Amino acid sequence: MIAGLEALTPAEARATMRDGRWTGITAGLAPAFAQANLVILPRDLDYDFLLFCVRNPKPCPLLDVTDAGSPVPQLAAPGADLRTDLPRYRVYRDGELVDEPLSIERYWSDDLVSFLLGCSFTFEHGLIEAGVPVRHIECGCNVPMFATNLACQPSGIFSGPLVVSMRPIPANLVAAAVQVSGRYPSVHGAPIQIGAPETLGIADLGKPDWGDPVPLLPGEVPVFWACGVTPQAVAMQARPSLMITHAPGHMFLTDIPVASLATA
Amino acid sequence: MIAGLEALTPAEARATMRDGRWTGITAGLAPAFAQANLVILPRDLDYDFLLFCVRNPKPCPLLDVTDAGSPVPQLAAPGADLRTDLPRYRVYRDGELVDEPLSIERYWSDDLVSFLLGCSFTFEHGLIEAGVPVRHIECGCNVPMFATNLACQPSGIFSGPLVVSMRPIPANLVAAAVQVSGRYPSVHGAPIQIGAPETLGIADLGKPDWGDPVPLLPGEVPVFWACGVTPQAVAMQARPSLMITHAPGHMFLTDIPVASLATA
Repeated sequence: MIAGLEALTPAEARATMRDGRWTGITAGLAPAFAQANLVILPRDLDYDFLLFCVRNPKPCPLLDVTDAGSPVPQLAAPGADLRTDLPRYRVYRDGELVDEPLSIERYWSDDLVSFLLGCSFTFEHGLIEAGVPVRHIECGCNVPMFATNLACQPSGIFSGPLVVSMRPIPANLVAAAVQVSGRYPSVHGAPIQIGAPETLGIADLGKPDWGDPVPLLPGEVPVFWACGVTPQAVAMQARPSLMITHAPGHMFLTDIPVASLATA
Repeated sequence: MIAGLEALTPAEARATMRDGRWTGITAGLAPAFAQANLVILPRDLDYDFLLFCVRNPKPCPLLDVTDAGSPVPQLAAPGADLRTDLPRYRVYRDGELVDEPLSIERYWSDDLVSFLLGCSFTFEHGLIEAGVPVRHIECGCNVPMFATNLACQPSGIFSGPLVVSMRPIPANLVAAAVQVSGRYPSVHGAPIQIGAPETLGIADLGKPDWGDPVPLLPGEVPVFWACGVTPQAVAMQARPSLMITHAPGHMFLTDIPVASLATA
């Protein structure tokens, strides 16, 4: 960690990523500002993917969409460049991972549209501030994620299951977890299900499809939130000629204050 | 009014519109369910208009978008037909009003995409239930609406000013009005400005650009909400070859319970 990195503004932190000084994960950086998932797709898929996000707002909360060819997210961070300002990217061709570069200038073209989607880091910070423990952060691992038996609303070539993240919550804090996360509809909002993994088609909480398993302690209830991996998983399944995303955990730091995303 | 019309379900009420028994305004019908603005555009404008809505969620809260050529809003009312189930429509050619029919079957083609946008009727019901008076309902007139000096975020050919609705609220109830409407981000949400019409470029509250003037009484504050007329005004200004909307006040009744739109 660069000394004092946590204390930088989003613009300062993005500068350390732009010039290659910071290539690590973004958890804990600029905690008062929303972080975002990045999905970049060719223009011929833009309408269907945009509509997929609109039809599935809980897993796909859109924070910004660029004009085709523009690397500047005008709403989320007008001074940023999406080609260089994330610490690490993933590049997929026909649904296969082909590169994990630190910048994507060499892949850029006027044909690309960038989608920024809200990230659960935002409401996790709220949970912790409200005294609700977040197990995977305590464990220093990634949140466990599961494909469910619930189908997303399809749009054009994009369809697939809803992916959820799971956090074990002490039974007496489940209501608080609902209330705190529900205040942030633009970063997944309230849980989609509480306490019944089997009805989501999840046979074994110890075997997540993505991320790491975390222990469920006595007196805790598994709580499921719509997960931002959903649009990536759905997009990958459609095998676009080119898709570029952030590398897991290496998110885009927006200039959007977390507090501005809270509803009444 | 058809006897008992207010007590019908949305599906039953839509049937009275489909067969021409009800051709009037929809205020007060099926009050537990969200009503929606309708904008229908040719497919060549769908991406730019969808992105305009995504970039301007306060005036343009999307409830559903149909597949091109489909008159069925799968999310908002899967049993409905948007060609027949509104009481009255408006048809524009190149930005000019050319017809105000009771159904639009003769205008329909596989080239059309329908957008359903949240309507302030929904939060007004919540205001009244919370004891916040709604002047234009008391007066039996339309809400006053104003074009502001705030520009919407443009998308392609779509750009223009934010249109706001104004409701005079007693000073001691302004906070409640914020809290109640803020619970409904998908139907315009919290006010965008409170108490300073001049900084929005509104010179005379007695001369609205749309709707009817309402009195502002002593001790009341003008409160401004983003208005669903915005996307229609912006779309009209782009002079599309064909645009079809609901006639003012003649909204689409969805199957979406108002309560399901409330955040924590």
